[in-house]
Amino acid sequence: MRTGRLEAFSDGVLAIIITIMVLELKVPEDHSLSGLLHTTGVGLLTYLLSFVYVGIYWNNHHHMFHLVRQVSGAVLWANSALLFCLSLFPFTTAWMDESRFEPTPVVIYGLNLLAAAIAYFVLQAVIIRRQGPDSPLRRAVGNDLKGKLSPALYLLGILGALAIDRDRIGVWAALTCFVATAIMWIIPDRRIDRVIHQHETAD
Amino acid sequence: MRTGRLEAFSDGVLAIIITIMVLELKVPEDHSLSGLLHTTGVGLLTYLLSFVYVGIYWNNHHHMFHLVRQVSGAVLWANSALLFCLSLFPFTTAWMDESRFEPTPVVIYGLNLLAAAIAYFVLQAVIIRRQGPDSPLRRAVGNDLKGKLSPALYLLGILGALAIDRDRIGVWAALTCFVATAIMWIIPDRRIDRVIHQHETAD
Amino acid sequence: MRTGRLEAFSDGVLAIIITIMVLELKVPEDHSLSGLLHTTGVGLLTYLLSFVYVGIYWNNHHHMFHLVRQVSGAVLWANSALLFCLSLFPFTTAWMDESRFEPTPVVIYGLNLLAAAIAYFVLQAVIIRRQGPDSPLRRAVGNDLKGKLSPALYLLGILGALAIDRDRIGVWAALTCFVATAIMWIIPDRRIDRVIHQHETAD
Amino acid sequence: MRTGRLEAFSDGVLAIIITIMVLELKVPEDHSLSGLLHTTGVGLLTYLLSFVYVGIYWNNHHHMFHLVRQVSGAVLWANSALLFCLSLFPFTTAWMDESRFEPTPVVIYGLNLLAAAIAYFVLQAVIIRRQGPDSPLRRAVGNDLKGKLSPALYLLGILGALAIDRDRIGVWAALTCFVATAIMWIIPDRRIDRVIHQHETAD
Repeated sequence: MRTGRLEAFSDGVLAIIITIMVLELKVPEDHSLSGLLHTTGVGLLTYLLSFVYVGIYWNNHHHMFHLVRQVSGAVLWANSALLFCLSLFPFTTAWMDESRFEPTPVVIYGLNLLAAAIAYFVLQAVIIRRQGPDSPLRRAVGNDLKGKLSPALYLLGILGALAIDRDRIGVWAALTCFVATAIMWIIPDRRIDRVIHQHETAD
Repeated sequence: MRTGRLEAFSDGVLAIIITIMVLELKVPEDHSLSGLLHTTGVGLLTYLLSFVYVGIYWNNHHHMFHLVRQVSGAVLWANSALLFCLSLFPFTTAWMDESRFEPTPVVIYGLNLLAAAIAYFVLQAVIIRRQGPDSPLRRAVGNDLKGKLSPALYLLGILGALAIDRDRIGVWAALTCFVATAIMWIIPDRRIDRVIHQHETAD
Repeated sequence: MRTGRLEAFSDGVLAIIITIMVLELKVPEDHSLSGLLHTTGVGLLTYLLSFVYVGIYWNNHHHMFHLVRQVSGAVLWANSALLFCLSLFPFTTAWMDESRFEPTPVVIYGLNLLAAAIAYFVLQAVIIRRQGPDSPLRRAVGNDLKGKLSPALYLLGILGALAIDRDRIGVWAALTCFVATAIMWIIPDRRIDRVIHQHETAD
Repeated sequence: MRTGRLEAFSDGVLAIIITIMVLELKVPEDHSLSGLLHTTGVGLLTYLLSFVYVGIYWNNHHHMFHLVRQVSGAVLWANSALLFCLSLFPFTTAWMDESRFEPTPVVIYGLNLLAAAIAYFVLQAVIIRRQGPDSPLRRAVGNDLKGKLSPALYLLGILGALAIDRDRIGVWAALTCFVATAIMWIIPDRRIDRVIHQHETAD
């Protein structure tokens, strides 16, 4: 089975997830700048963070499937599990934002990030196993430093928000971890591009 | 007429259905774990069930159209009927969840599952009839055990929820039927894959 | 310029329009069958009517672009005008339904149908003019009986709802016109299929 | 990397943005024509303006990517930044409309238009730099008169709304600028079409 429709379906779901989050932004009742800042000032940044995360997943998904020729049932379901985790972002983002960064919602947001990272890792592992010993995806992924560092950072943030109660330091530490991980992924990664290039010129 | 645009349109509709259900998840006003469990603890599982069902339909739709080369007007309308049934999932899911599994909403959810199963069966029959005696889809479907078992299980669940009133046993029986059917479909089905493989190597 | 992306974009917009209408279906607060019938009994039929109309437009759009090879700026904007008219369906459907078929909302719904029909006609005319004297679309459309009858029926319904005030007869006449037009379009039309077939075998 | 999936994802996001704005149109509680005009009379025009703007961006995006063969990581992120700016349209449109054109929301709407124009310019610049000295996009864009005039007009409108407080003249000046810019873009632009034509016949 080809990857075309799986990519199209995933694109559709990701496009909707990334766009419906904006529906959570409440229109301020006050028509002044302070009304805007008070109602959605923080919300806009939270929305930006989740937008960037969904963008990163789309980007990585896009790169990964460049190296996939065929999908199996297991790949389809691993992909659905990833989409399910990502589809919870609008919910966890809205809760974290509406609570004005209370510890519990921040932890839940971190668990959502963690779940998505694990689902992505499983999808990658299922594809690599299916491709066998010469897997071009395995070569592209290499030691997968970022992929291993991300869940560690999420976990660190979650534990920080749970452990440090004083002056919201734990919450700020968690948010710093989540933002830092996003920045780490935005910085371009030349390895996969190189393997894709080799793979396509070899075809 | 080719299947490309029909598949793209169906993918779009299914992607939206599967994603907007998350909009029904209410953000808890309480910012604690008990607030989350109280408000959306059950809701999340209901959402997961409907997500899995839409995923199953996408998966089966995807497989089925691998064996279809051309679409007729009848196929287009049978496909629309299936999409209509599936588009009611966000509504019936939300009602079942908000009622905390009262018998009537559970029955309506079961009827929605049943209607979707019948619409899928009709679509399959329309395609097989159009493909004529050598229909590759007919060969792939075979005796269609799952396709015949599913409506029976939905019906069993609906009747259970209607008949057994004591201690919500009927409702639990119905939910068990609905979850069991979903699990039955997730377990991969090698027959269609085999026929697709034969069909494509024969081309 | 090719038609691929215009079709993909139109598919996306139509898929969203057809799906978000279900978001207007209010979840009944009462958890009984009478609660369902009272809250959404009529709503479901209204939703079905609009679903069928968007389905018809998608179907016709799909057929029409089979006979189009290239798009110009004028085609792009005529297509956008059609999408704009169709994007108002969720709004006019919800108003007609919530008003329980008061004359004014029914007239506005009819005007929306009329506007969409005119936009479709303009799009068709723009394509035919661009294709020049040998336009395959002109041949396919022929005398365009349905295309001419539809606006007449919408107009008849609108006038009926405006003129006849007694016992809601005008409203029922209007709804009959709208439903009859939809049925007229569902009945398959072999002409376009035939021209598409000729066109494709000629390639 | 090919442009196919980037275009599909962008189409999906733009299709959703353009369609969900209609969800902001409030269904009037009054079922008369005056109820409609009072509740959504202005809203409909605001919606039309934003619809046209998203349509313009889709149109230009569509044209631009006709001249792009390959995408890099920088192009992906510049494209995401553009989509982010456009995804804020439903929010800023709703605020401007609900405030009945108070100066601050009009200024924020103008800033949103400005941000989108800058993001589009950056995307264009990133592509041109990647294409190198023979960039077909650079040739197509030429002196980019419209692209330079638009931000100037947005800025003029923003400053007008900020500076002129009397009798809402500033607000009307701003809206005139925003509408004029949209009209300027709807008028077809033959240059890019010509270069696309040359480019494709040269292939």
